[in-house]
Amino acid sequence: MKVAILGYGNIGRAAEQAILSAPDMELAGIYHHGEINDQLVKNQMAGRVDAVLLCTPTREVPRFAELFAQHGICTVDSFDIHGQIYDLRSRLMPVCEQNRALSIISAGWDPGTDSMVRALLLAMAPKGLTYTNFGPGRSMGHTVAAKAIKGVKNALSMTIPLGTGIHRRMVYVELEEGADFKTVEANLLADDYFAHDETHVIPVDCIDTLNNVAHGVNLVRSGVSGATHNQRFEFNMEIDNPALTGQVMVSCARAAIRMQQRGEYGCRTMIELRPIDLLPGKTENLIKSIV
Amino acid sequence: MKVAILGYGNIGRAAEQAILSAPDMELAGIYHHGEINDQLVKNQMAGRVDAVLLCTPTREVPRFAELFAQHGICTVDSFDIHGQIYDLRSRLMPVCEQNRALSIISAGWDPGTDSMVRALLLAMAPKGLTYTNFGPGRSMGHTVAAKAIKGVKNALSMTIPLGTGIHRRMVYVELEEGADFKTVEANLLADDYFAHDETHVIPVDCIDTLNNVAHGVNLVRSGVSGATHNQRFEFNMEIDNPALTGQVMVSCARAAIRMQQRGEYGCRTMIELRPIDLLPGKTENLIKSIV
Repeated sequence: MKVAILGYGNIGRAAEQAILSAPDMELAGIYHHGEINDQLVKNQMAGRVDAVLLCTPTREVPRFAELFAQHGICTVDSFDIHGQIYDLRSRLMPVCEQNRALSIISAGWDPGTDSMVRALLLAMAPKGLTYTNFGPGRSMGHTVAAKAIKGVKNALSMTIPLGTGIHRRMVYVELEEGADFKTVEANLLADDYFAHDETHVIPVDCIDTLNNVAHGVNLVRSGVSGATHNQRFEFNMEIDNPALTGQVMVSCARAAIRMQQRGEYGCRTMIELRPIDLLPGKTENLIKSIV
Repeated sequence: MKVAILGYGNIGRAAEQAILSAPDMELAGIYHHGEINDQLVKNQMAGRVDAVLLCTPTREVPRFAELFAQHGICTVDSFDIHGQIYDLRSRLMPVCEQNRALSIISAGWDPGTDSMVRALLLAMAPKGLTYTNFGPGRSMGHTVAAKAIKGVKNALSMTIPLGTGIHRRMVYVELEEGADFKTVEANLLADDYFAHDETHVIPVDCIDTLNNVAHGVNLVRSGVSGATHNQRFEFNMEIDNPALTGQVMVSCARAAIRMQQRGEYGCRTMIELRPIDLLPGKTENLIKSIV
C-alpha cells in the first residue's frame, strides 16, 4: 500500500513513523500544502499513490479531500469540528462515489476511536449516559483562542477533567512586553471559549518549557442492557497525542485502501468501519489471535 | 425486525428483555431446542422470522446455525470456545452464502465486544501487550468442571483477576452426603481445569445462596504508536453477565438483518462488523450524536 502524507507538522511526522513501522505500507511521498494542485495530483500522484493522509489544519481538509477524491485517490483526515462532520461526509460522498475513491473522515481519537467506543457502549447498554472526560492535556482550540487575546505573546491552555464531561481550563500565558496581566486575564475570562468553564489564568515567563503533547481520556457509561440497570463501562487512555492521531490515520488508510479494493466507494466516519480492516495481516490470523 | 429466541435460560430471558426494549424489533417467538427441526423451520419460521438468537449451550450452536442458514434465516450466537471460532466461521460461511443468510458468531462480551476493543487497541498501538483480566465473576467452564468432581453436589467457581492475564480460582463446593472434603479438594486441584492456576477450594452448606451473575473485565494495553512508546489504554466493565450477553446478541441481530438487506451474506465475527450497524436509528442521527 502506497501512502503519502500532506502536511509535515506534529501529526504528519507521527504519521510518517507509523507508515514506516507498518509491515504492509510504503511511504509514497511527503507533500506541503502550497505545492498541491490539480496538475500535480493528476501527473505525479494519480495511479501511483493509494491513499493520502491529510495532516493539514482541519479547515483545509475539505478542499484537499475533494481534490484527491476527484482523482480516485483515497484520503484519511482527522477533521475535528464535531458539528460539521456530517456535512463534510455529505459533501465528499458523491465525489468519492463518482471517482471510485474511499475517504475516511474524522479519524483521530476524538472524533475517531472514542466515537467507536461510544458506539460500542451504546450497543452494549442502549439506555443511560456516557460522559467523555478529556485530559489532562493541551486543547488546541483553547490555546489558539488564548493566543488571540491582545497582550498575549504565547499561551498554553490545558484541559483538566472534573468528571461528568465538565472541564477546568488552566491557561498559561506569556505576556507581550508592557501588557497588563489583569487586563489580559479579564479579557480571556470574558472570551466565549472560556466564559462557560472554570478557568484559571497563570502568567509564566516561557511557554516553551511547559509544552508536552501528552493527553488523555476517561470515557464512562452507566446504562441499561435489556431491563438490567447499573451496567458500568469505562475506557481510559494516557497517550502522546500526535503519535496516536498519526497511527489512527495510518490504520484508517489501510481500511480505506482495502474497502476501495473491494469496490466500496464513498465517505465514511470511523463508526462505519470494520475494526478488522484497520489491522495488517490475514483475516484467519486476526480472528484466531484477537477474537 | 422480527427476531426469535432459541433457548430460554438466563441468556434467552435477557435477550427477550433486550428485544422488547428495542425500538425497531418485535419478538417473533421463543423456541426450545427439542421442538426445532427442518420441517418446523421451513413451515413456521422461513419468511416470517428475520433472525434467530441461539441462546443454547455453546456446543449446540453449530448445528442450529447451519439449519437456520439453510432456510435463509440470519442467526446470532455467543459461541465461546475460542480455539474453534475460526472453524465454525469456515463451516457456516458457504451455507450462509448459498442461502443468502448472514450469521454473526461469538457475539457476547468475550469473545465479542472485548474482541472489538482488542482490535481497536491494536489499530491504535500496533506493537505492545494486551492483557484481558476477567472477573470477579463466575466461570461457567470451571463451575461445570468442579461439579464433575466425585463427591461434589453443587459448585461455584469464581474467577478473580490478579493482573497480566493471571487468574485465581475460588471454588465453592457443596458436598454430597458422606463425601470427604480433603479427597474432593485433592481431586479438584489435580483436575486439568484447575492445576495451572492458583486455586482455593472452600466447602459451603449451600451454593444457591452464593449465586450472582455479576462479572467484570479489566483489559489493558501498553503499546507503541508509530515510534512512540508508553501509549496506555484500559477498558473496564462491571456488569450483569447474561443481561449484557443478551443485549449484545440483540444488537448483533440488528446488524445481521441490515447486512442481509444490503446483500451481504456469509458468517462474521464481531471484529468484522461496523459499530454503526449495531445501533437503531438513521445514519445521519447516529453520526451527529456519537462521532
